[in-house]
Amino acid sequence: MALQRPGSMHVGVFFNHTGHHVASWRHPRAQADAGVNIEHYVQMAQTAERAGFDFIFFADSAAVREAKAEALNRSAQYTAYFEPITLLSALAMVTKHLGLVATATTSYNEPYHVARKYASLDWISHGRAAWNVVTSGNAAEAYNFGRDAHFQHDERYERAHEFIEVVKGLWDSWDDDAFPRDKATGQYLDSSKLHMLSHRGRFFNVRGPLNVPRPPQGHPVIFQAGISESGRELAAATAEGVFTSNLTIQQQRDHYVDVKGRMTKYGRAPEEMLILPGVTAIVGRTEAEAQEKHRYLQSLIDPIVGVEFLSMLFGGTVNFAGCDPDGPLPPIDVGGAMNQGTARNIIEVARRENLTIRQTYERLAGSRGKLTLVGSIAQVADTMEQWFDAWACDGFILQPSYLPGELDELVELLVPELLSRGLIRDGYGEARTLRDNLGLKRPPSRYAGTQASAAD
Amino acid sequence: MALQRPGSMHVGVFFNHTGHHVASWRHPRAQADAGVNIEHYVQMAQTAERAGFDFIFFADSAAVREAKAEALNRSAQYTAYFEPITLLSALAMVTKHLGLVATATTSYNEPYHVARKYASLDWISHGRAAWNVVTSGNAAEAYNFGRDAHFQHDERYERAHEFIEVVKGLWDSWDDDAFPRDKATGQYLDSSKLHMLSHRGRFFNVRGPLNVPRPPQGHPVIFQAGISESGRELAAATAEGVFTSNLTIQQQRDHYVDVKGRMTKYGRAPEEMLILPGVTAIVGRTEAEAQEKHRYLQSLIDPIVGVEFLSMLFGGTVNFAGCDPDGPLPPIDVGGAMNQGTARNIIEVARRENLTIRQTYERLAGSRGKLTLVGSIAQVADTMEQWFDAWACDGFILQPSYLPGELDELVELLVPELLSRGLIRDGYGEARTLRDNLGLKRPPSRYAGTQASAAD
Repeated sequence: MALQRPGSMHVGVFFNHTGHHVASWRHPRAQADAGVNIEHYVQMAQTAERAGFDFIFFADSAAVREAKAEALNRSAQYTAYFEPITLLSALAMVTKHLGLVATATTSYNEPYHVARKYASLDWISHGRAAWNVVTSGNAAEAYNFGRDAHFQHDERYERAHEFIEVVKGLWDSWDDDAFPRDKATGQYLDSSKLHMLSHRGRFFNVRGPLNVPRPPQGHPVIFQAGISESGRELAAATAEGVFTSNLTIQQQRDHYVDVKGRMTKYGRAPEEMLILPGVTAIVGRTEAEAQEKHRYLQSLIDPIVGVEFLSMLFGGTVNFAGCDPDGPLPPIDVGGAMNQGTARNIIEVARRENLTIRQTYERLAGSRGKLTLVGSIAQVADTMEQWFDAWACDGFILQPSYLPGELDELVELLVPELLSRGLIRDGYGEARTLRDNLGLKRPPSRYAGTQASAAD
Repeated sequence: MALQRPGSMHVGVFFNHTGHHVASWRHPRAQADAGVNIEHYVQMAQTAERAGFDFIFFADSAAVREAKAEALNRSAQYTAYFEPITLLSALAMVTKHLGLVATATTSYNEPYHVARKYASLDWISHGRAAWNVVTSGNAAEAYNFGRDAHFQHDERYERAHEFIEVVKGLWDSWDDDAFPRDKATGQYLDSSKLHMLSHRGRFFNVRGPLNVPRPPQGHPVIFQAGISESGRELAAATAEGVFTSNLTIQQQRDHYVDVKGRMTKYGRAPEEMLILPGVTAIVGRTEAEAQEKHRYLQSLIDPIVGVEFLSMLFGGTVNFAGCDPDGPLPPIDVGGAMNQGTARNIIEVARRENLTIRQTYERLAGSRGKLTLVGSIAQVADTMEQWFDAWACDGFILQPSYLPGELDELVELLVPELLSRGLIRDGYGEARTLRDNLGLKRPPSRYAGTQASAAD
């Protein structure tokens, strides 16, 4: 497989509520009411844009996360916060170049609504919208949408495949030149450039057309993060940006080659997808300073929250109640985990290094099971450069431990180093859209070159 | 019935694509690409805020409107445009006081998504969100959401009642003081102030809780426009703002008294609702100037569009193909009309005044079947003042014929006159939220004073 890679890293930032670390909200430089504080997000988005980052990214869930009251009371994440598409529409107005990536589930949405909202966001932002496609791993969502049980894993992925096809079809409802809007002749639109989707499938019947013109990017960019077998196939078939959660360069390189290798059978070239591992980077002017920052963060973890966090990563099926926090992990079945790959990674590390329960949650609570780099500016930049140079990734998605404090530090300390090494581009140049920034082509309409169907 | 009315009129503006008139987009001072031109909406919203208007309002449909290609080609409305909630989230960032009213249908949405998006918009805008509740009258929507046929009228309204109850219940998921976010003690939230909705009804099963804190306004303001018997009952039970479409002061006064009179049986006081007739006001410095403006607009109507517009108002069941445009209206059954009240008003006027088909569409194409005032500044202000003084309404929703041109004229010519007569307030004063501006109380939580249920 011939791989072509971008000349410089692509870098996004994950705005995860008060930050990625489970104790983030308690940090003095975290905005504790981040969930519904719009000014906080405006400032952070503008910081990310000043740094020249490609995009900001928002996860999502359509339910309050399930946890025992004592743990829920003591953590900030995934309880109550902005709906990400409304939030990104607002942030589109205070930024000019930054990509805007919002998650929406294919399990408890209708494709028409999703196609419409992302198309609308793409128009509002002049071509900076992206959709992070997920299947819901959270049974609590089912209860909010009239279901007594969650969709099964395979069914979720089949539904996701069909959902994406419908959404992309709806985005092509109108040709790019379907609206002459000629005041003199009285012709507003050309209905010979309007296409009925007329989709009838296993999960969805959607006639169309979409009531939004074809988006500036043709299609908003498609992101995904699934790393199961089904997730990798879905990504190979449809994703243009993939988030990964590998802890070693070798795992990441294997993952990179595997997913890009699967693209051929879907008629896609490897350069039509960027693979970006999540990384939490705790950077100091010296290694000692970074280690001290990290220790301070870890000291903020309430043991109730730490144990509950581990339990959640393993799918809630592990009972830690009788366990000594300073003893080893009990036997764990990851079958119920939302992200089985992450869960398996955690167990592997804990067993290999003989970690106690407390050491395990301390190790993982900051990164939520993803890569954490703690070190001097040069050390962190070295690792990122190694991964990039090894063709293990096309860049990174930064996952600050706490917000806005650590974002400010990354921009102050790490970004100048990456710039001076020529690893990231300096500003946005001529790029106008997120696709331009990411080096992704604007997709042609599925109807390009065909005879259009009439409107009636 | 004792009626209490506001001391001054409440005034909103309907931003209806290129304008309310069917030929609006062809006007030299209309923005033909309004549908997806964000800068156009930013300018208009800021104009509306400079004028001190209470709110801007957006209609919606989840489908491209059904029309023969020749008519679809020649009109701008309800084809392809911004989704209103994404648009209003963006406009929240460029305004400070203006209320933001977006329509969402109860027929093809899930209450959890609707509750969440309006709560999010309310937080983004610091308490300026409102939901205009509609039931879909457009069968084309059914085809985009997996249905082969549209819901029947009564079923739509029963679903709407339950939908609103679920949404309001979800907005009360968290008490106003449920989030202490105390970094020192480590308590982020107080789950004794979290409420599971656990709704099981005819149309929806929704457990909750909502994953957004209780909105700044408690509940975003609820608007409605239905004028059928079912629509009036729904409004009396739940609406805080009601749009009407009466053409005479007597009809409007009857409607006003009728709907406010129905509120008692739902335990509501008349002042908990504002009733606002839609009005298109074509204002000139002289009456002759206004008439000339109106004539020019009418001259822009393409006969194909005019006839199709009439046909649509009557529910698409009338075949005008064999009719002489200069002859009378054929027999018409309004049973299939989206808005039966508007359709009946049109027929009544046409029969009473012996209007031809052409005269009928010319009469109605500007106002879409609602009140049109054409006259000097004093004449238009006189009529508005008469309606208000007769206690036929609590203010108006202005429906500019074309945008942004006529909005600019209303602000330049009509607003100073209404101000000088003391009919509208001057600026926003101490008001912080849309409820403040409208004089509507912040609703207490349904759980206020009760023992809260625990989270688990």
